[in-house]
Amino acid sequence: MKFETLIQSGDWKGEKHVPVIEAPEEVASGEAFTVTVSVGKEIPHPNTTEHHIRWIKLFFKGEDEKFPFEVGTYEFNAHGEHVNGPNTGPAYSEPYAVAKIKLNKSGTLLAMSYCNIHGLWENSKEIKVK
Amino acid sequence: MKFETLIQSGDWKGEKHVPVIEAPEEVASGEAFTVTVSVGKEIPHPNTTEHHIRWIKLFFKGEDEKFPFEVGTYEFNAHGEHVNGPNTGPAYSEPYAVAKIKLNKSGTLLAMSYCNIHGLWENSKEIKVK
Amino acid sequence: MKFETLIQSGDWKGEKHVPVIEAPEEVASGEAFTVTVSVGKEIPHPNTTEHHIRWIKLFFKGEDEKFPFEVGTYEFNAHGEHVNGPNTGPAYSEPYAVAKIKLNKSGTLLAMSYCNIHGLWENSKEIKVK
Amino acid sequence: MKFETLIQSGDWKGEKHVPVIEAPEEVASGEAFTVTVSVGKEIPHPNTTEHHIRWIKLFFKGEDEKFPFEVGTYEFNAHGEHVNGPNTGPAYSEPYAVAKIKLNKSGTLLAMSYCNIHGLWENSKEIKVK
Ligand SMILES: [Fe+3]
Ligand SMILES: [Fe+3]
Ligand SMILES: [Fe+3]
Ligand SMILES: [Fe+3]
Repeated sequence: MKFETLIQSGDWKGEKHVPVIEAPEEVASGEAFTVTVSVGKEIPHPNTTEHHIRWIKLFFKGEDEKFPFEVGTYEFNAHGEHVNGPNTGPAYSEPYAVAKIKLNKSGTLLAMSYCNIHGLWENSKEIKVK
Repeated sequence: MKFETLIQSGDWKGEKHVPVIEAPEEVASGEAFTVTVSVGKEIPHPNTTEHHIRWIKLFFKGEDEKFPFEVGTYEFNAHGEHVNGPNTGPAYSEPYAVAKIKLNKSGTLLAMSYCNIHGLWENSKEIKVK
Repeated sequence: MKFETLIQSGDWKGEKHVPVIEAPEEVASGEAFTVTVSVGKEIPHPNTTEHHIRWIKLFFKGEDEKFPFEVGTYEFNAHGEHVNGPNTGPAYSEPYAVAKIKLNKSGTLLAMSYCNIHGLWENSKEIKVK
Repeated sequence: MKFETLIQSGDWKGEKHVPVIEAPEEVASGEAFTVTVSVGKEIPHPNTTEHHIRWIKLFFKGEDEKFPFEVGTYEFNAHGEHVNGPNTGPAYSEPYAVAKIKLNKSGTLLAMSYCNIHGLWENSKEIKVK
């Protein structure tokens, strides 16, 4: 079995699990810029002890590179857990992160995300470096 | 040996490893807000294949709670690694992340960070929930 | 761009990056057993500051399930980094982990691994639960 | 607030949250050996969607070193979550991992673990390298 049969995709405006990558169309080589990765931008995803987004991983594949590089992992770990019972805790982590990165060539940003009951999802976005 | 002898702290304006927590002084209960965690805000930290910040973990301890909750982990994974040799790769992850969280009681945000050669560092910031 | 174009596979006896999953052919429902995941079982992979295996993720897809579940993430974080320079440090983490899990239905274990310069690799292994 | 006020310790034979480190008393310099880290070795910890051990981190502090190195992170991610409701899923990750490492000097292994409702715990174990 391959991950390609398991990593789901779709239009994030209609499918709430698809990770959204927000980044400039074009950035300057070697200059820091921010990338926002999130799940549920259009249709909020549940955020409960029993059902939530656990993490988003961000990769970068340079246009003439053979292999992708992992840029970052962003974990969302608080979902109302508490000794008094589920969903009674004081903290909830939303599936949203802003990263700051530098690139020195054009390529593609790729995000993989994981819902604790709906599995793996992906998206990608091209980015130009000048 | 205890972690208390290993987790270092200090003034982030003078010691570049200390994680910085930027959050509102006061937030509304159950409403999402952003927290920025970073290392090197005043004095940039190196970002090379051999020396870089690997991750920041963010926790929340409610004022009347016994235990802290992990809010998130933010990993910074690209530091110029490449098959052509260190520091020749196309991507560099800066030690900076913005998280989005909801709280329903006052307490303290705590950050722990890790430099791959200078070890563990910490900081904290109180936050009021009304 | 999809992850299916990036996650590489192959025969782990000939390609050192392919993760190896070692688990019983058959286990008893709800009884703990161990799974070993590793990279480089036949042909050792380099373990240097500049080139190493960072992590292996293990998932389980039940035979009649729509979505996979993440079983665990195993990070290998020490690779000779040191203030005195790369590959002079006291600790090296080998790309090997043993996990302990319980399953209550048959399905497939899937491993994804990441080399910091050779990208993403995968493998899978069926497991019967009686 | 400091992490030293939050990271709990105790005797793992009486307190089920304390991580247990099992490693040889003495190892040969630069030769791979295994370390087992676990929670609940004597008194099993619950493993439910609402209450479970999330991760154990392992560090090494060389005896003449200023800083600890992170050896590995071991995440336990499946706890019966399912679209049909909590604790109905097919997979459960036990808080147990075996790592394989190489050391070239004596020092101390330190483990930090996290229960999703009972917070942070620690333990340590000296190890001699000859
Ligand atoms: Fe979901
Ligand atoms: Fe440093
Ligand atoms: Fe490699
Ligand atoms: Fe507990």
